[in-house]
This record gives sequence, C-alpha cells and structure tokens, in this order.
Amino acid sequence: MCGIFAYLNFNLSRDRRYILEVLFNGLRRLEYRGYDSAGISIDSSSDALVSPALVFRKEGNIESLVKSVYHEVAATDLNLEESFSVHAGIAHTRWATHGEPAPRNSHPQTSDSRNEFLVVHNGVITNYEVLKETLVRHGFTFESDTDTEVIPKLAKFVFDNANEEVITSSSWGILSDTRYIPCFRVLGDKRVTFSQVVLEVMRHLEGAYALIFKSTHYPNELIACKRGSPLLLGVKELIEEPSRASFNDTKFLLSNGQPKELFLSSDASALVEHTKKVLVIEDGEVVHIQDGGASIFKYENAIEKGCEKLKRPASVQRALSVLEMEVEQINKGKYEHYMQKEIHEQPESLTTTMRGRLIRGGSCKAKSVLLGGLKDHLRTIRRSRRIVFIGCGTSYNAALAARPILEELSGIPVTMEIASDLVDRQGPIYREDTTVFVSQSGETADTLQALEYALENGALCVGITNTVGSAIARHTHCGVHINAGCEIGVASTKAYTSQIVVMAMLALAIGDDTISSQGRREAIIDGLFDLPNKVKEVLKLDEDMKDLAKLLIAEQSLLVFGRGYNYATALEGALKVKEVSLMHSEGILAGEMKHGPLALVDETLPIVVIATRDACFSKQQSVIQQLHARKGRLIVMCSKGDAASVSVGGSCRVVEVPVVEDCLQPVINIVPLQLLAYHLTVLRGYNVDQPRNLAKSVTTQ
Amino acid sequence: MCGIFAYLNFNLSRDRRYILEVLFNGLRRLEYRGYDSAGISIDSSSDALVSPALVFRKEGNIESLVKSVYHEVAATDLNLEESFSVHAGIAHTRWATHGEPAPRNSHPQTSDSRNEFLVVHNGVITNYEVLKETLVRHGFTFESDTDTEVIPKLAKFVFDNANEEVITSSSWGILSDTRYIPCFRVLGDKRVTFSQVVLEVMRHLEGAYALIFKSTHYPNELIACKRGSPLLLGVKELIEEPSRASFNDTKFLLSNGQPKELFLSSDASALVEHTKKVLVIEDGEVVHIQDGGASIFKYENAIEKGCEKLKRPASVQRALSVLEMEVEQINKGKYEHYMQKEIHEQPESLTTTMRGRLIRGGSCKAKSVLLGGLKDHLRTIRRSRRIVFIGCGTSYNAALAARPILEELSGIPVTMEIASDLVDRQGPIYREDTTVFVSQSGETADTLQALEYALENGALCVGITNTVGSAIARHTHCGVHINAGCEIGVASTKAYTSQIVVMAMLALAIGDDTISSQGRREAIIDGLFDLPNKVKEVLKLDEDMKDLAKLLIAEQSLLVFGRGYNYATALEGALKVKEVSLMHSEGILAGEMKHGPLALVDETLPIVVIATRDACFSKQQSVIQQLHARKGRLIVMCSKGDAASVSVGGSCRVVEVPVVEDCLQPVINIVPLQLLAYHLTVLRGYNVDQPRNLAKSVTTQ
Repeated sequence: MCGIFAYLNFNLSRDRRYILEVLFNGLRRLEYRGYDSAGISIDSSSDALVSPALVFRKEGNIESLVKSVYHEVAATDLNLEESFSVHAGIAHTRWATHGEPAPRNSHPQTSDSRNEFLVVHNGVITNYEVLKETLVRHGFTFESDTDTEVIPKLAKFVFDNANEEVITSSSWGILSDTRYIPCFRVLGDKRVTFSQVVLEVMRHLEGAYALIFKSTHYPNELIACKRGSPLLLGVKELIEEPSRASFNDTKFLLSNGQPKELFLSSDASALVEHTKKVLVIEDGEVVHIQDGGASIFKYENAIEKGCEKLKRPASVQRALSVLEMEVEQINKGKYEHYMQKEIHEQPESLTTTMRGRLIRGGSCKAKSVLLGGLKDHLRTIRRSRRIVFIGCGTSYNAALAARPILEELSGIPVTMEIASDLVDRQGPIYREDTTVFVSQSGETADTLQALEYALENGALCVGITNTVGSAIARHTHCGVHINAGCEIGVASTKAYTSQIVVMAMLALAIGDDTISSQGRREAIIDGLFDLPNKVKEVLKLDEDMKDLAKLLIAEQSLLVFGRGYNYATALEGALKVKEVSLMHSEGILAGEMKHGPLALVDETLPIVVIATRDACFSKQQSVIQQLHARKGRLIVMCSKGDAASVSVGGSCRVVEVPVVEDCLQPVINIVPLQLLAYHLTVLRGYNVDQPRNLAKSVTTQ
Repeated sequence: MCGIFAYLNFNLSRDRRYILEVLFNGLRRLEYRGYDSAGISIDSSSDALVSPALVFRKEGNIESLVKSVYHEVAATDLNLEESFSVHAGIAHTRWATHGEPAPRNSHPQTSDSRNEFLVVHNGVITNYEVLKETLVRHGFTFESDTDTEVIPKLAKFVFDNANEEVITSSSWGILSDTRYIPCFRVLGDKRVTFSQVVLEVMRHLEGAYALIFKSTHYPNELIACKRGSPLLLGVKELIEEPSRASFNDTKFLLSNGQPKELFLSSDASALVEHTKKVLVIEDGEVVHIQDGGASIFKYENAIEKGCEKLKRPASVQRALSVLEMEVEQINKGKYEHYMQKEIHEQPESLTTTMRGRLIRGGSCKAKSVLLGGLKDHLRTIRRSRRIVFIGCGTSYNAALAARPILEELSGIPVTMEIASDLVDRQGPIYREDTTVFVSQSGETADTLQALEYALENGALCVGITNTVGSAIARHTHCGVHINAGCEIGVASTKAYTSQIVVMAMLALAIGDDTISSQGRREAIIDGLFDLPNKVKEVLKLDEDMKDLAKLLIAEQSLLVFGRGYNYATALEGALKVKEVSLMHSEGILAGEMKHGPLALVDETLPIVVIATRDACFSKQQSVIQQLHARKGRLIVMCSKGDAASVSVGGSCRVVEVPVVEDCLQPVINIVPLQLLAYHLTVLRGYNVDQPRNLAKSVTTQ
C-alpha cells in the first residue's frame, strides 16, 4: 500500500505550477494504493542550495492535499510561474500502518526542521523501534508515530558522521550488533555522495520498502531504492534519438545532457501518460538520478560461510523495457466509477484473457488449450504429488473456485493455502509439489514471501498475475498472464473472473487427455467460448441488483451461502460487500450451516443462497428448506427457469442467472454479487473505488 | 438432529403417569439434539387394539410439551393411574428441517386420523417428494410440510396392500422404477408382520434416518430401524439372571417372559439412568420388539454384477455391550448450565484425555507418547503422502489448531478438509493418504459420509471421537478416543480442547524421534503434563470475561483475529460467540486483514486480537499497530506480562493468559473466549445450552 511518486525535469524549463500538477496527477493515479493522507515536497527556489525544500502534507485524499497546497501557495505568495530548468519533486499517498492519518504522520518524513533529508516510503520498517532508540540517544527528536521517520533521520546521521574527518567505529557500532566497517571512507574534501549515504542507510533497515530520497545537500538529485515493495523508473527523452535506438541498450539511462523527464512510481499507471520506457527496479538496487542520468548500485552478494565478508556496492547495468499499457485503460470512460467500469467490461476482459489460448476447429478437429508460458512444464506439473494454490483475498477465492475442476481433470490433490498462513506455519513444501501463485498485481507481499519460501524448498513455482514484469512474474519458473487489463478499483472484479478462466484453462492443459474425459473437456472449451456472451447476459441484472441493494441498504449483516463450485462465490461475494459497502457480510460453506451459523438466522437477517444447477443442487434445495423452516429472509440465486424449484411457496426473492458448464458457473454467479456490492456502496454513500482503510496492492505485510 | 426415544415395559405394571414421565425424561436428555417442538404417543387404554393411540404434539421445548400434555390429560379426564402390564410409548424432540416448527410438523407423524401407523424420525428423507406424489395419487391426504409424513403413510399403504388377497405388481411398481418383487407374500389368513411392513417401507426410503414405528395393528410392539442416523436399544431386566451371564451372549434380547424394560434412544445419555446394557443398532438393521424380546433383521447384501439380485431380509444375531457412561456425567452439578460446567471441568477432562498416554520418568528416562489404538498403524501413517484432516464446525477448528505441530513434527503435508466440501467436490483421496476424521459425537453425518468416501478410495482412516461405539469409532481402521466425558452443551467446549490435545499427542506419536527434535518433543510433553494447571489458571479470568461481556452486550458484530497456531482460536472463538450469543462474530486470519476485512474497522466495532508469544508475535504487533491506526476498538489477548508490548499507548483492553509451549497455546487461548461467549449469552438472556436453531450432533445433512 501507499503510493510513491517523483518527477525530475532536466534541461527542460518547467514552471512550479506544471511541476505541482505532474506530482498531483501522479498521486491521483496511485490513489487506489492508499488515501488516508498525502504529501509532496518541492523546492522553494531555483537555487535549491540556499533555501530549504517546501513540504506540504494533508490528512485525507489527494484532492484535500491539492486544495490545501494552492491555499497555502496563495497565502505565502509563492510564485507559481517561477521556472526551473532542473527540479526534483517527490510525492506520497498514504495507507496508514503506523500512526493514525494526520499531517505529522504523512510523508514526506523529514530529518529535521530544515528538511535536509526527505523520504517517501511504501512498506514497513520492522526494526524501527531499535533504530529510533539509538537515534534518540544521539539527540534526534521524533515528531511522528511512523516507522518511516527513522529513515531520513538515519540519513542525516550517516551524512553528518561521514563528513566528520575521522569516522570512529564506535559511533557506528551502536547501529548494528555486528562488527561494523563502513562501506565508504571520506577523507579530506572528497564529499560523500547521495548514493553512498542511502546505501549505508539501507544496510540498517529491516522490513519491506520502496523509498525515494530528496536532500538539500544534493539539490536536483533523487535516490530510489527498494526491497520488497515495487518501484519503477520512467524515462522520457524530449528529443528522440535520431538512430533507431532500441530500448534494450542502457544509454537511455546515461547522462547525455539532453532535455529529459524522469519519473519514479510505485506502479505503471502513473507513468503511462508520460512515457512507456520504464525500468523495473529490482530488490536491493539503489538508483541515483543526477545530471539527467541514472546510475544503479547494488550490494554484491559476498557472504562466505563462517566468515561474513562485507557486501560492497557495485554498479549495475540495466536496460529499459516498454510498457504494454494504454492510457485509455486507466480512464473511467462513460462510467462513474472504476469498479463499475471494470464489472461491465468483463465480457471484453474475458475475451482478452482467452485470446489465442483456446483452439477449436481448423484442420485438427480436436478442441484444446494452449498456454505458451506453461507448455515446457506440463509434464513436471502432471507428475507432482500435490498442486498447492497460494494467494490472498480475492486471488485466493479465484483459486478456490478453480480447485474442483483442476482436481477433476488432473486427479492431483489440490491444497489451498492462504499465503500468510503458509509462511506463518512454515508448512511443508517439497520438490514434488507444484505451487501456483495467484496475484492480480503480482506484487502482493504475502504471496511474494510464500513464493520465496517455495523456491527455497525446491517446488516448481507457477505464477498467475495480471501484471507483466511484476515480481511474481519475474521470480516464478513459469506462468500465465491473465491479460484482464489494468484494474484500478480497489475491489477486484474483472481480475477475479479472468483468474478463474485462466485456472480453468490450466486445468484443461494439465488434465490428461483421456477419452473418458474428452466430452467433459470439450464441453468446458465450448463453455469458455460462450462465456463472454453469458456474462453480457448476466450483466443485464444491473437494475435488479440495484433494486435489491435498495432493500438491503440499512442492514448490518449479510450471509452468503454456497457450496461445491460456488463455495468460492459465497466467499468472494461476501468479501466484495464487506470491502466496499462496509456491511458485515460473511461467506459460509452451506455444508457448515448447521454447525453454528444457523443460530444467526431469523426473519430479519438477509441471506443469499447460491443454488444454481450442479451436482450439489438437491443439497442446496435442502439448505433452502431448512433456512425457510427458520423463517430466514432468503435471496436465492438459481439457474434460469429454476425459480419455482428454489422458492418455497414463492416466498424468496430469486435471482435467475444463465446456465453454463458447472465448473464455469462461478464466473457468472459472482457478477450479480459484484453489482450488488457496487450499488449497495453507492447507495450507502461510500466511495466505491476507495473503500475505507484499504488499498489495492497489499505490498506490505 | 432431532432426538427419538421409546419406552416399552413388559410383564411389569406401570401406570400412565410413570410411562409419561419416562418418555418426558428421555426427551429431556435428548433435548440438546433439537428443541423446536416435541411430541409423544401413548395408548388410550390397556386394550390397545380397541382404541386409537393418543398423540400429543407441541411447538417449543420439552417443558411446553409436558405442560400441554398434563393440561390435556386434565381436560379429558384421562386416568393417570391406569396401569399397563405391557405398553409401548414413543417420543420425539425436533430440530426442524422441512416445515417450520408447528404442531402439525411435529412428530409422531401419522398415517391417518386413526393413527394406524405412527413414526418418530431423526434424519432427512431425500426422495420424499416422489413418494408423496405417488401416495397422493393413491388417495392419501398430507397435513404437514415434513419429509417424515410419507413414512407412516407408506407403512399404511404397504400394510393395506399386503393384506389384500392378491398383490398386483402394478400397485407396487409405481413406488419404484426398478423391477419390483415384494419381499414377502401374504396368503390366506397369515397376516403380514410389523417387521415385514417396515422392511418393505425401508426399501423405498432414500436419505438418512433413524425411525421408531408404533401401530394400532401391532399393539405393544415397536419397530426401530436406521440408516445413517444413530440409534441404540437399552435393555433392563428387572430380575437379574442367577448365573453370571455375560453381556456377550444374545439371550438378553430373547423373549423369555421375564419382566423387562426396553428403551430406544438416539443416544446413550437418555439410557444411562435406566440401564447400561445396550445394543448399538447398525445401518440397515430392523429391530422388532415383541413379547419382551427383540429380533433383528437385515437385508442381505446380494447384489451381483450385471444382474441385480434381490436383497432378502435375514435374521441377525447380536450381543449387548456395556455403556461406559455415568449418570453424574449428565447432570449439571453445582453449575447453572451445561456449557458453564463443561468449560470449568476442562482441567479434569484434559487430565482424563491424557491419562495413561504420556510417559515420563521411570526406568527409561525418555519422554514419550503411547496411543494404544494407533500403534500398529504408525509406520503406515509415517509413510503416507498426505495427512488429511476432515471434520465440521468445532472439530474442524480443533484439527486446524493441531495442524502446524503435526506438520512440524512429521514433515508430512497436512491438508484440511471440511467434510461436506470434500464430499461435494469428490476431492482426490488415494491409498497413500491418511485421513483423520474428527467428530465429538462420532455420528456427524457429513463426516461419516466423508469417511465412507475415503474408505471407498482406499485411504487409511483414523477416527478421533468422544463416543465409544459411535459410527466413526466403528468404521475407521484405527483411532483415538478423546475421553473428555459426556458433553451436553450444544456449543462444544471441553471436547474442543481434548481434541487438540489428542491431536498434539498424535503429532508426537507420528513424528520422527530425531535427536534434533528431541528437545522440542520433550518440551511439548512437559507442557502437556502442566496443561491442566494452566487451564485452571486461565479459568480465573471468569469474572474479567463477564465484565467484558457486559461491555459488549449490545453489539451487533465482533471480529476475532488470529494467526499461526491461533488461527483456529480465532475461528473457534468466533464460532462460540456466534452459535450461543447470536452475535454476528467472524474469525479472520490476521494475515488476510488487509485483503478486505480491514474495511469494517472503525471506532465502534469490537475486535479481539490474539497475540500471545510465538514466532508470529511481531507480525501480530504490527496488526495491532495497523488496527490502532484505524482507531479500532481492540481487545488484545496476550501472554502474561506482555500487556505493555501490545497495548498501544495503553488504549486497548488486554486479556493476559498463562504461557505454555506455543503449539499448546490454543488450548489456553480458547478458554477466555468460551467464557466470553457463555457470559454474553446469559447476559443477553438467551438459552446457552440450547442455542437457537441448532442441535448438538448434526446427524443429518
């Protein structure tokens, strides 16, 4: 969570108003990552050496910040037309972890009243308490409740010490329990560089982070570094190179004196309107932007057994890559909200997900599935002892929805693991296991940690993400992109359905092509081809779900019962309602109803029962009977034409949905619940794209 | 669920008042199985042939029935002192499945206005709609919404047809799609027997059931039969046999003219005050009580491939066994409620659970675990590919609590399966799997179905139950009894902690005795020895939890966050609150907090966070920080002495619990939550031993 952004113009005149707007727009694009409070820092004059940087911080969302900045600008007569031929600005939108949302806990966090070092941070520093104690002992005064504040203060401490003539090891030892040899020495008038300072700071930080540093000691320079949390560098050259320069060389990063704009951002959505040339910063790298160029440093891995050798930073050569995102993807178009847009574009996103992957007809009559990224690993997967699905939240639910068909077609036991629980338990994972990591962003911290754990244990690791170039895409052995297009709404909708479809295709690819299962496989493939049309059909329930939402608007609680293929639908439907409409909804396996949850049932509590046609239908009819016997207030989702079979005495509200192959039914069934969650939220007056307390990519633990 | 009971006195004079009281008492013991409505049937005169049976049915619990019966007796001048030397009475307490609680939906259900056939039923008849249609076509009129009503009506249909001179196959064919040859023929004046009628009825019933039949055509006889649901026969001989007769012969079942009392009951708790000589009726058996003796019939399994041979009933020889239950176990003693008693007797129940199973000291210095029922199977279990824990509700949660230590000590992947979900999915289970079935009653319908499925698939099946002689104890290959003593409160408490302890011992028994794990194993064994004392200590929080309950009395919702070993504690704690206090509480994996549930957090919603010391402690501290940043209203459970480390700025309510070995901590941590649920319920004015809509043993699907 949290979004960080920076903008540096080089040899290119930009006035203060323009710079502010670029920073604000960057934050607007990242706002889904957190919207508790926000802040920016810009220079107070074009001679950045002589005056402290300006810092603006404000509780609330980006627009509150914007308003407050322009208000303050007017109050202080700051010249918006003042021009800078080079300028480094940083910005932050916050999802509070340590300390309540308040200006003093917002970023940039600072080293001191003169803002010598300023930091924006996405992540959590786990050893901040120890660092804080030490820094307090050295005279630093802390103003916030954040974990972040230790970072700029530590930078100042490192900087101040490095510029003393002699560095005594004692002054350092306190920061670290191990023997300490500083990784640089500054003698005489050779000043310590910005990247040296940050490399030193990083050595002391534990936890997950992406950081951008700005300093009055290093005007017009920026440092970016990361471990765990995502960070991208975007480069826009104002004068195109005359030759057909490929992105695969590194000269875009060089300091060549050409006018240039450089951007740093937590993700691509804030870059795409400026440039498509990006560099995905890797864990442990420190990017130093100076004189219009970017140098990259990294600690070398030089640990020898028994005697811990010191890691020394080394320069790294990296090339740019090209974003595959379009600006239209990050606009709302004709819709009022991103969530609404993303629900309604599911027929298209599912089509894109399946494009080129389903094979039907042609010279070969067989119907089959082709997943390019997996084909070299299918034999290994088929021979695995277990398939372990690993994910969090909605991605976990998608995997749960696909589990039955994967078990059916492959015969391999599929174990479900919530990523954080696997890591907490350090559950057994072996070489014979295939682990499948599901994450929309590909940057989910818990899922990444589980991936690291699975890699250590030798399992085959398969990634299923929506983000090309994401950490999960990079670190798994193989995988499938869901190609659902950029998803901005914090509540995942189209990514969920595309994930299920990808995993159904995975099941088809892994499953044996036995003759006995041929009919089933072909029926599923036909069902997949037809799915976008069926989703179009179910989207017509929009108004009905709005009417239902009106009835439920004042409720405190909602239960959703499902089983079999639609156990996941119950969990995901309840999660949607919970996360955006702030109603306490809970998804419950219908088979567990009598083991406790039934106690809650009375004539007031609304209950959604999913009872579309499949092998469990008669069991769900029995559940409806039993709920009816308790006078439960039922809303039953059933297959088209089944209203009479599910509504006892016509007393239930019925939602009829189109029928598809049973294993694909969860893709259809979730749509009315997405619509319900959407309308409930809008009717209740909440912000559907920025649900309270949440953020889209959970990139911290 | 539902409880069924019958009392037959033979050659022993009992007045009507006595008979009524025996039936009422039986129902009181079974009341935890359902308490929506109840009913009984007794004879109207000692010449049962001349007048119809009396039926009393009443909505509400047993005491409502008792009151209404005595009221009606007074109104109709029925003689309570009338004596019967032989009399058959039946009784039922209902947990509604089909049809709301109302007299017409209560049992006994009847064949007609003259009550020719009366039935009490525990279970669900899944094909009742088809049977009903057919019977309606034959002129029967239905009065209830139950699935049960088809049974007495079908009995009458069979009886009436059997007593016609010629049985035409057409009159039967309609009841069955398959070729039908009736299993008995009645010619001339040879009357069809009661057991023949019931055997014929059973052939047409699908679903799960335990049934008791009473008929005016067969006065002073009873028929009991079952498939799926549990049923016991108890025998009390008024004159003890002179020789040292062993229970292992079958003469107790013979009709020897001796005065005798016979009881039928859904479980042992209603028998133990009368007799300890019982017979556990097996699936498919029909017990015919007549002339003071009991004959048992069963369809022979005579299905041949290709050509379905007809099953014919055969007589079965069975011997009685002895109940190991004491009457004190089913009394409340000094406590106000069973749940309260059972929470407070956990130090004793845990001691009983471990008795004779932990070995420490003596000539051999090693500490070890001995589980007699498992020792021949340990090698097989150690070699299994997976261990699959299967259960429902609280039993599932207990398995989840034990999972991490079993994984740690055995290195075998442990998969969790909710019983109904495994059956719904028909998930892969193989010979190389060890499946462990956890059920307090040993009769849980879903778990039994999963057991049947696992047996079919060749897995090794291990049972963990609290009920000697239960279906799970009988049908698994091996197992462990938890010996927690009879549990009456519908919300399971002491069975939960004993289940965890048994599974921790299971982990010790399965785990390799490697030197590297020796310290850990011994620490766990020491921890187990000390556990009852630590539970005594944590029970001292009773008043504190009552105070906390007072604060929460008016809340609508409660969240419980836990992780690692205490993920299960969060689920189980929330389940307790949900099922007895009727508050919408939800247990949530703390690691999933940011993936949705955090949206619900504000200054009003109470949240319990379990943050006792273990490897996840720092992560839970971070969770507390984040909840605090959202102004969450926190109640933190921590280890003794940790209050300062978990309460941010002293603002949380803290519950300090004693520290035990991390993997045993769930046994301690659940206790305050059990107490909270108990006090919340009592303060809110609900019946804690009979939570709304629930029943203890879920013996139907």
